[in-house]
Amino acid sequence: MVVLSKQLAVNGDRLMQSIDRLAKIGRQPNGDICRLAFSPEDLQARYLVQQWMIEAGMTVRTDAAGNLIGRYEGTDPNAPALATGSHIDTVPSGGPFDGALGVLGGIEVVRTLKENGLRLRHPIEVIVFTDEESSMIGGQAIAGTVLLDQPERYLPKIDQPIESCLEKIGGDWSQLPSARRTRADIAAFVELHVEQGCVLERKGQAIGVVQGVVGMQRHLITIHGQPNHAGTTPMDMRQDALIAAAKVILSVQAIALEQPSQPVATVGYLTVAPNAMNIVPGTVELSVDMRDLSQVVLEQMLEKLKQTLCEIAIATHTRIDIAPVLTVEPTLASLNVQAAIEAVSQDLNLSYLYMPSRAGHDAMEMGRFTDMGMIFVPSQEGLSHSGMEYTSPEQCTQGADVLLHTLIKLDPIYA
Amino acid sequence: MVVLSKQLAVNGDRLMQSIDRLAKIGRQPNGDICRLAFSPEDLQARYLVQQWMIEAGMTVRTDAAGNLIGRYEGTDPNAPALATGSHIDTVPSGGPFDGALGVLGGIEVVRTLKENGLRLRHPIEVIVFTDEESSMIGGQAIAGTVLLDQPERYLPKIDQPIESCLEKIGGDWSQLPSARRTRADIAAFVELHVEQGCVLERKGQAIGVVQGVVGMQRHLITIHGQPNHAGTTPMDMRQDALIAAAKVILSVQAIALEQPSQPVATVGYLTVAPNAMNIVPGTVELSVDMRDLSQVVLEQMLEKLKQTLCEIAIATHTRIDIAPVLTVEPTLASLNVQAAIEAVSQDLNLSYLYMPSRAGHDAMEMGRFTDMGMIFVPSQEGLSHSGMEYTSPEQCTQGADVLLHTLIKLDPIYA
Repeated sequence: MVVLSKQLAVNGDRLMQSIDRLAKIGRQPNGDICRLAFSPEDLQARYLVQQWMIEAGMTVRTDAAGNLIGRYEGTDPNAPALATGSHIDTVPSGGPFDGALGVLGGIEVVRTLKENGLRLRHPIEVIVFTDEESSMIGGQAIAGTVLLDQPERYLPKIDQPIESCLEKIGGDWSQLPSARRTRADIAAFVELHVEQGCVLERKGQAIGVVQGVVGMQRHLITIHGQPNHAGTTPMDMRQDALIAAAKVILSVQAIALEQPSQPVATVGYLTVAPNAMNIVPGTVELSVDMRDLSQVVLEQMLEKLKQTLCEIAIATHTRIDIAPVLTVEPTLASLNVQAAIEAVSQDLNLSYLYMPSRAGHDAMEMGRFTDMGMIFVPSQEGLSHSGMEYTSPEQCTQGADVLLHTLIKLDPIYA
Repeated sequence: MVVLSKQLAVNGDRLMQSIDRLAKIGRQPNGDICRLAFSPEDLQARYLVQQWMIEAGMTVRTDAAGNLIGRYEGTDPNAPALATGSHIDTVPSGGPFDGALGVLGGIEVVRTLKENGLRLRHPIEVIVFTDEESSMIGGQAIAGTVLLDQPERYLPKIDQPIESCLEKIGGDWSQLPSARRTRADIAAFVELHVEQGCVLERKGQAIGVVQGVVGMQRHLITIHGQPNHAGTTPMDMRQDALIAAAKVILSVQAIALEQPSQPVATVGYLTVAPNAMNIVPGTVELSVDMRDLSQVVLEQMLEKLKQTLCEIAIATHTRIDIAPVLTVEPTLASLNVQAAIEAVSQDLNLSYLYMPSRAGHDAMEMGRFTDMGMIFVPSQEGLSHSGMEYTSPEQCTQGADVLLHTLIKLDPIYA
């Protein structure tokens, strides 16, 4: 086994040059980056990243889900891989760091090992997951959670059937099961990602040790009142759907605040009908999005919400329906990986904080079949999904260094 | 002076036939009536109503604002008119009674006098006001409140310049001041109208004695928060514009409920940006519409609202702006006319209730220069501005009878 020093460090300048170069692909006049999965820009970015992987000494393949997988062999040909990676597709107005940092940080880790003539015992895989921002087909194919008989459920942002999308990037819907991986060939997965929130920045911490990816309960609530003339209908004869909605909005907030685990709950979408200044609102539709690391807490919150909706319906003379839109179970990070990230942060004298990931990531799918962990670095002002998102070169480099040493620390732990 | 008996009564069947006949003009397949001011349907309706006026023994003229005015002479050639009337234009999906009852009830009153060989001392004028549902140009021209240098403010629903619209119906924007009337030639104006609310029906009363048309304060409120990822932004780091909006909505309701004069206050319009399930709302725009018979109460409510907005902005870390959209001062009904309507209701053994009109009407403009009053009859379930609006033949007839006898009762009161 190779001897590895704590002084081993990635080349921050080289990492930032890669990030800057990738960010040119899909850059819009306003500074946002539009690099939708399966778009010509995505293909161009894949080609570039593949070149970098090869230059870093990796063998490269594309699986049936279009995942681009670079592999840097270890010293033990029979050992399962330690995997890292993230995604290079963006939302329609994305930024340079979301996803890209995890992919390019992984490549930089391999470059660093290679230029120091080092190999771990385990092979390292750097995975570029397909379409993280929409269908999540890449991570789900690896986890084996794709519903193979329902391709219409995997609609990419470019709005073309998933089958033809996969074909464009060298994948093959009909061969999707072949993309599936197991704990036997990926011992652990560690993803480096920008936080996309403001917790690390506000608390002045360099590294987030992610405890898991929160589960999500998303529901659509419809409030049926009675549209009426805003002048001629006395206050006590109204069935005002927006009054009921206001009570729902404040209740959703209260339900989150009263839980000690600090879940989040949001009403982000709301529409009023008929939505005229002189008509008492007849119908309001609104979304509720609740997230927590604990499935038990999520279920308690939903139960409390349903009970509150009944009370509000009675008090406001409205009818309130609730329908599930999306349920994602929480995925906890492996304690092995969390402990390694913490130990490395201490070794490197970086401040750190244990925290949940409240956004979805490919790591969530990976955590369904193998040990998973995530390293967060700060996002300036918590901004993400915007050309304005920013993480400093120092913070990006710290993240990649933590990734490098976490993989090194995990190397002796797994068989 | 003629002798008039309490037994004098309108012909309810004839009234309902007129209402049914007029309702055919602009009737849509779904039952709604679309008879926008200045549309071909409006012209067709004007032509029909004009024929009925002539048959009822009236002379007819159209003033510069396109108001169609039928006049049934009185016995005193020097007496000012007692006027009645309403409008025959509808909203895009209107019903058979809103406006039409007041016009056709007025014509029925004249028909009844004529077939009994009766005349009052005062002439009776039945006025069909132009475009009540949108620009209110007809009533405003008679009251002299049109802003003659700002024709662009009087935009009809058919979305053509008011000048060419007036031309179509025999009016003339450049001659608008000639349409102005004074107390010297209209001694009083009494409008029969469906309530467009559910107060009379719920309280089981036949006649509403209108105390005045409420004033209105309409404002647009903009709440500036911070759009953020609904997953990654902890509850205590949010500036959620929709949380602030929920507090505003409930405060607006509370401000109305705490006033003893029973004003109404409504948030009818609300939009959220970016309005996505997974984004904390960044901006909310909403309307506040407040109505009361007392200008003092309206100003107190607005003051209270502004103070509350400050408190909510501080509590939610948002910025809240408020801008006036529309201010209409209340118009009180004349005590003479109110007393006459009450006395007639008693004479005819009809139950009645004093109430404000919380919707705008042409009577509001008339009340700016002469004695004004309104007679309300019930609207089934308070429904209006819909093809489903309904007032029974009996209720329509009762309203027209009250109008007939109110004009008779007012005849000796005015010089």
